[in-house]
Amino acid sequence: MADLKLPSRSEDFSEWYNQLVLRAELADYAPVRGCMIVRPYGWALWENITAQLDRRFKAAGHVNAAFPLLIPQSFISKEQSHVAGFSPELAVVTHGGGEKLEEPLVIRPTSETIIGHAYAKWIQSYRDLPVLINQWNSVVRWELRTKLFLRTLEFFWQEGHTAHATFDEAEAETRQMLDIYTDFAVNEAAIPVIPGKKSQSERFAGADATYSIEAMMGDGKALQAGTSHNLGQNFAKAFEIRYLDQGGALQHCWTTSWGLSTRFVGAIIMVHGDDQGLILPPRLAPHQVVIVPIFKNDEEKTLVFETAKKIREQLIKAEIRVKVDEREGQSPGFKFNDWEMRGVPLRIEIGPKDVAKGSLVLARRDKPGKEGKSFVSQDGIAESVTQQLAAVQRALLDRALAFRNTHTFEPKNMHDFQTAVEQGFARAYWCGDASCEEQIKEAAKATLRCIPLEQPGAAGACIFCEKHAKEMAIFGKAY
Amino acid sequence: MADLKLPSRSEDFSEWYNQLVLRAELADYAPVRGCMIVRPYGWALWENITAQLDRRFKAAGHVNAAFPLLIPQSFISKEQSHVAGFSPELAVVTHGGGEKLEEPLVIRPTSETIIGHAYAKWIQSYRDLPVLINQWNSVVRWELRTKLFLRTLEFFWQEGHTAHATFDEAEAETRQMLDIYTDFAVNEAAIPVIPGKKSQSERFAGADATYSIEAMMGDGKALQAGTSHNLGQNFAKAFEIRYLDQGGALQHCWTTSWGLSTRFVGAIIMVHGDDQGLILPPRLAPHQVVIVPIFKNDEEKTLVFETAKKIREQLIKAEIRVKVDEREGQSPGFKFNDWEMRGVPLRIEIGPKDVAKGSLVLARRDKPGKEGKSFVSQDGIAESVTQQLAAVQRALLDRALAFRNTHTFEPKNMHDFQTAVEQGFARAYWCGDASCEEQIKEAAKATLRCIPLEQPGAAGACIFCEKHAKEMAIFGKAY
Repeated sequence: MADLKLPSRSEDFSEWYNQLVLRAELADYAPVRGCMIVRPYGWALWENITAQLDRRFKAAGHVNAAFPLLIPQSFISKEQSHVAGFSPELAVVTHGGGEKLEEPLVIRPTSETIIGHAYAKWIQSYRDLPVLINQWNSVVRWELRTKLFLRTLEFFWQEGHTAHATFDEAEAETRQMLDIYTDFAVNEAAIPVIPGKKSQSERFAGADATYSIEAMMGDGKALQAGTSHNLGQNFAKAFEIRYLDQGGALQHCWTTSWGLSTRFVGAIIMVHGDDQGLILPPRLAPHQVVIVPIFKNDEEKTLVFETAKKIREQLIKAEIRVKVDEREGQSPGFKFNDWEMRGVPLRIEIGPKDVAKGSLVLARRDKPGKEGKSFVSQDGIAESVTQQLAAVQRALLDRALAFRNTHTFEPKNMHDFQTAVEQGFARAYWCGDASCEEQIKEAAKATLRCIPLEQPGAAGACIFCEKHAKEMAIFGKAY
Repeated sequence: MADLKLPSRSEDFSEWYNQLVLRAELADYAPVRGCMIVRPYGWALWENITAQLDRRFKAAGHVNAAFPLLIPQSFISKEQSHVAGFSPELAVVTHGGGEKLEEPLVIRPTSETIIGHAYAKWIQSYRDLPVLINQWNSVVRWELRTKLFLRTLEFFWQEGHTAHATFDEAEAETRQMLDIYTDFAVNEAAIPVIPGKKSQSERFAGADATYSIEAMMGDGKALQAGTSHNLGQNFAKAFEIRYLDQGGALQHCWTTSWGLSTRFVGAIIMVHGDDQGLILPPRLAPHQVVIVPIFKNDEEKTLVFETAKKIREQLIKAEIRVKVDEREGQSPGFKFNDWEMRGVPLRIEIGPKDVAKGSLVLARRDKPGKEGKSFVSQDGIAESVTQQLAAVQRALLDRALAFRNTHTFEPKNMHDFQTAVEQGFARAYWCGDASCEEQIKEAAKATLRCIPLEQPGAAGACIFCEKHAKEMAIFGKAY
């Protein structure tokens, strides 16, 4: 498959994406419409994502648990906004064990309700708070338009659910998790993100406030890459999650929830990829280095493999994830293309001359051709590779940031605004009025992505109604 | 809760188990009948189990992936024995997104069918083989009699699915995975298991051969703790999983599947626990050591906590999982009981006198009272703890093995056989005839657990019909 060229990104970004996901063997279509199979290479990437997030969650005092995937349908209706938001998307189990169920069950679209039910049972006193639980699982939402990783009926994610004694603690948790997502996106995935608050119309169904990290894809469109919700006392009241405070009075808890999903894999693809395929950030790549042995006959092969394995051992010792491509019957050129398609950050080429000279070729995935190649000594190879991996990681972030900067505009009127959102993000003042937001959406086919936490300080005039506006917002077309 | 005594194991093993699961906060009942919530402490134990298994799977060349939880109902019917085995247990989704589905979907009870469908697409040539994929997920089977961890509608597990070019390779894989389960059970969970082959009547629905590891619980009953199936060409034929061999001929693949589930948590509880609660094998325990500070006033508290934290740092450096119990307002006695209930293998007590003397108390969970206590120096504490953890691990395995040995009998007739299976396992010759197996089951209310791989060598007389029997089998009452 590696010998067929991908469609070019600039010509057909959407088709480039679809084909790349299949050809890099990240995922495949399932027999049920809108579902996906995450193939081993895609899952290895997701495992690295989960490891980096899980480490951060645990360092911040969270623990993991598992709640059931089946929820009584009546639970969904207990929180008013929640039912409105989710009931059109439910998958409903009506039969079990050959019999019709008395009450239909739904496959969780998210777990606030069933977790709320459990917390009501577990939490009695202020001593039981805070409860800081996360779970890694999959959820089902009956989406009509689907796209691998970006929007699928079933998707994989983590959902954190916490309960606190006060509003302030819940808000601090909500913001802490947004910070953790931001830190993860920037420092592990090399994706610059804008942390901000959602407008009321874009809030999670049942939240008092929703925060998100928004990333710009390679086509200038926005992707919501993680969300953190302050649920106020909405679910606590719907599910009677209460505690006795230190004075002996019964109080409702304040809860939060936050999630990041396999969508994020889509973000990595669309931010870093190029016409040759994926480019994976070294900190998350399943293979950070691939070694391609080059030889013409058995004698050369023996020599080259011996060196390749020696190099591999040194890299493994330095905790570098390395693979030697030992496939028979494929040319080095085929292998180069194949690993470029799969986005391995560094390639090492070793031929008979390299063996003789004690050298090898290091090729960076992010810099095509000669520019990305260096000839280095086999001595101290782990050090050279570590440096190069760090350089690739940094370069990917720099490039993504530069791209976002050149594709972010500050239009002064709605005409410029429309041009801006065709190419990228529009940063514009907004008066806070939902009707302005709605009319902007209709006029420019772009949504308010978030109100960034970082604000210019000064006030301005609303891009739509020109009235006094205290806050700057980010608008864009979105996935 | 820790101040209430558990029912005694000898008086009511089943109720001891139920209460222990709840009071150690391993799991809780979900609002849907037969489903469970795995609470953080139980999930941390499961995470340690998964880490140890996953490490072994990957070392043997397997990779992880994720297949969807929704399967077209028609898939289940494609393999004749499979549909007979699983159709009575299915949960059926009939509605999605507010509409009735054209074809009902089932929630996976196991994934042979959907994975078979994918393999048929992915596998073309002998070069694509073997395919060695595992997935960590949950499955749903509509069980009528449920018990936390042991049998629940939804349970968590791993399911490995492999495809090979030949019968021999598939059989080698099936046996390799059985070996891996055995090694894990013995060396991580301190549970002696009997690896063996299932009789035809106890095979997995769709398998040519099923192997299992069988463990003896603390009440003498058997628990099937992991299974490995040689599926022959049954699923390959049902799903057209084929490859072109080196000679250019189209061949059906040979497939296997193997799984180990959260049942295993039940095994750990029932093999090692005592009347005070859980006893967790150190290699899997979420907390290997708990430090309980003992003090009477603030001055003592400051001193004791300082030492406790110093000890904690040293243990963390040695990669020991340690927790300091800093709870306010609870007596040391309460804390001792609480951590005994939760089965933490080692307790460290530090009081003001210990601070003064540079010593501390180490108490082993598996040896009650003075026998399990030692007074050790704070110097070299990591070394002392490491040794003690290894000693507990070894002692648990020895004790479980001794228990199994004293509860395994070699009855010479059916009268003794019946007495044997009331107390534990019966090792007896079996002629291989399914009708003998069935009659034994009716007469003694015990099932053939497995035909152990390790056989006495000599032949004997069938325990039931007294005809010539080549193989010895293990019989027992089972969970």
